[in-house]
Amino acid sequence: MHSPQHFSRFAVPALDRAMTGDLQRKIDRKTKPQGALGRLESLALQLGLIQQTLSPKLIDPHVLVCAGDHGAAKAGVSAFPQEVTWQMVENFLAGGAAINVLARQAGMKLVVADAGVAHDFGPRAGLIDAKVGADGTANYLEGAAMSEAQCAAAMNHGARLAREFAAAGCNVLGFGEMGIGNTASASLITHCITGLPLAECVGRGTGLDDAGLERKRALLAQALSIWPERPEADRPVDNDALRVLTRFGGFEIAMLAGAMLAAAEARMTLLIDGFIVTSALLVAAQVAPSILDFCVFAHCSNEAGHRLQLGWLKGEPLLDLGLRLGEGTGAALALPLLNAACAFMNEMASFESAGVSEKT
Amino acid sequence: MHSPQHFSRFAVPALDRAMTGDLQRKIDRKTKPQGALGRLESLALQLGLIQQTLSPKLIDPHVLVCAGDHGAAKAGVSAFPQEVTWQMVENFLAGGAAINVLARQAGMKLVVADAGVAHDFGPRAGLIDAKVGADGTANYLEGAAMSEAQCAAAMNHGARLAREFAAAGCNVLGFGEMGIGNTASASLITHCITGLPLAECVGRGTGLDDAGLERKRALLAQALSIWPERPEADRPVDNDALRVLTRFGGFEIAMLAGAMLAAAEARMTLLIDGFIVTSALLVAAQVAPSILDFCVFAHCSNEAGHRLQLGWLKGEPLLDLGLRLGEGTGAALALPLLNAACAFMNEMASFESAGVSEKT
Repeated sequence: MHSPQHFSRFAVPALDRAMTGDLQRKIDRKTKPQGALGRLESLALQLGLIQQTLSPKLIDPHVLVCAGDHGAAKAGVSAFPQEVTWQMVENFLAGGAAINVLARQAGMKLVVADAGVAHDFGPRAGLIDAKVGADGTANYLEGAAMSEAQCAAAMNHGARLAREFAAAGCNVLGFGEMGIGNTASASLITHCITGLPLAECVGRGTGLDDAGLERKRALLAQALSIWPERPEADRPVDNDALRVLTRFGGFEIAMLAGAMLAAAEARMTLLIDGFIVTSALLVAAQVAPSILDFCVFAHCSNEAGHRLQLGWLKGEPLLDLGLRLGEGTGAALALPLLNAACAFMNEMASFESAGVSEKT
Repeated sequence: MHSPQHFSRFAVPALDRAMTGDLQRKIDRKTKPQGALGRLESLALQLGLIQQTLSPKLIDPHVLVCAGDHGAAKAGVSAFPQEVTWQMVENFLAGGAAINVLARQAGMKLVVADAGVAHDFGPRAGLIDAKVGADGTANYLEGAAMSEAQCAAAMNHGARLAREFAAAGCNVLGFGEMGIGNTASASLITHCITGLPLAECVGRGTGLDDAGLERKRALLAQALSIWPERPEADRPVDNDALRVLTRFGGFEIAMLAGAMLAAAEARMTLLIDGFIVTSALLVAAQVAPSILDFCVFAHCSNEAGHRLQLGWLKGEPLLDLGLRLGEGTGAALALPLLNAACAFMNEMASFESAGVSEKT
């Protein structure tokens, strides 16, 4: 059992659904056949409920990218060397990564945080120092990836940032990550929380070949087997997600989980990216199940386990473009659909206002 | 057989694929695992080939919405009364329809054309007068929907507009439509050109109930049965798509087909919307098969036959949001993905430029 004193409490509200009827009526009076805007309509309804208004709007959208290194990366769970984590953080800071380009395109503010990259960046403009461990996590093939105090500290860093965004007026937050080895971490977390077979939760990450995938599966099975407190095969841990996070997590995953919980607490819309971000959500949703009402699933990743996570969470992704990059790229690509959902609610004419005849 | 003298010729170029290798190399050198941007990568490749450049960009995007009325609408093929066509055109002109809102959101210029609405709008700012018939098409339950001369005139109107856009610099054109009864028309066209069973090509349109759907199917089977030149069940007409268009088409569908052909001739990117727009493309693709290389399929509509059309054309839609509104709404919603594909090609760093290590 984890020691509850380490971890902050989060009070994620239950979504008040009293406005559902009024929102649906507004949607249905727009000059279109009922339901003809498909998923945009359910999205508009959700945004209206989150914001408790008939005229939802997105204010100052941010995407938070948390980076961290993984002790297990040295054991060969990734196709890329560990140094790529800090090099990609430098790429973020220089503006040249995919998320820089796509966030700019979508009008999202990109915030990059070092949750525990094994590299000394020094004080740097544009990089949030949220470093929990100077060398990344410990190797879960040998023991716990982090201490409870570290896990709680990473979550608190994320929560603090989300609260800062909310205080400044931002009401929609996308989540992204960078960390060589973090699909492995996400696979273990997903298996432990959902109880889905480990092998099915493991994918090719940044591009392992068949042999690499087999090695990754074997290493992760081993990581699980040496954990004395591992869940039984037929019984996921459920209410002890923080124990799983501490054992297998990355600092960036813990930071994201904390940021998500605080963002939902502040009634923001959470724009969930791919496999690793969703593993953070699996943890957060065990801590506070009502967080899911605040989540929009941006896309379905090509990383094998993401579809399983979405199925388990009953999440309906907006996009299905075969992305498998992380960094929050799916969240940035989905933002225009959220903007469109708000725009049709706020700007489209109704049958009455436009003088259009109705269905006979 | 149609009389070839009525119809303009279109010279749609074959796509020169010589740059494929260079484009793929540029995509693969970007700081991401190979293939990790999924569908955005194939889209970037296609845009590069269409524009014959390693740095594709979208210039002055337009969406052309063609409106027309259908003689068969009076027979009860739609859930909405025919007057909704002109009322919705008024709604477009007033800025209150879904496509107004979504085109604005996407930064697309909306152009609305009256291809043959059964309503006298008079001269109106913002409405292109391309009226081929003052009362809409004739009822194909009694004879041909239009004459060959009318069909050719509608196509020429579309072609002229597309050429004007191209001449002004626009290089991406979305297509939309409005016309009560036009899913019925699109169903007949789709059946005749693809040979797919008529019943499967018929859907609920703006929202028919089960009884309405059955009636629509029966009426369309009847329309087909009274056509002396109907194709045999096992042999679609193939090379005589213009004969099908003349028999069952809407003026707006013919206008769209002409606009598509001229747009591809001018090497624009064609952003294809839903079921009715795709029926126009089925015609255009029989006239000039290489047009398909210039097409991006914006989305898969919830109108039953659209998935069949996409399958037949081997079109891979970008979005699958359960839309079934038409008006070009899917095209407007997909445009940000095309912008994203161009942006990553033009703005992302390469492994070399960012100093990022590669896969081991």
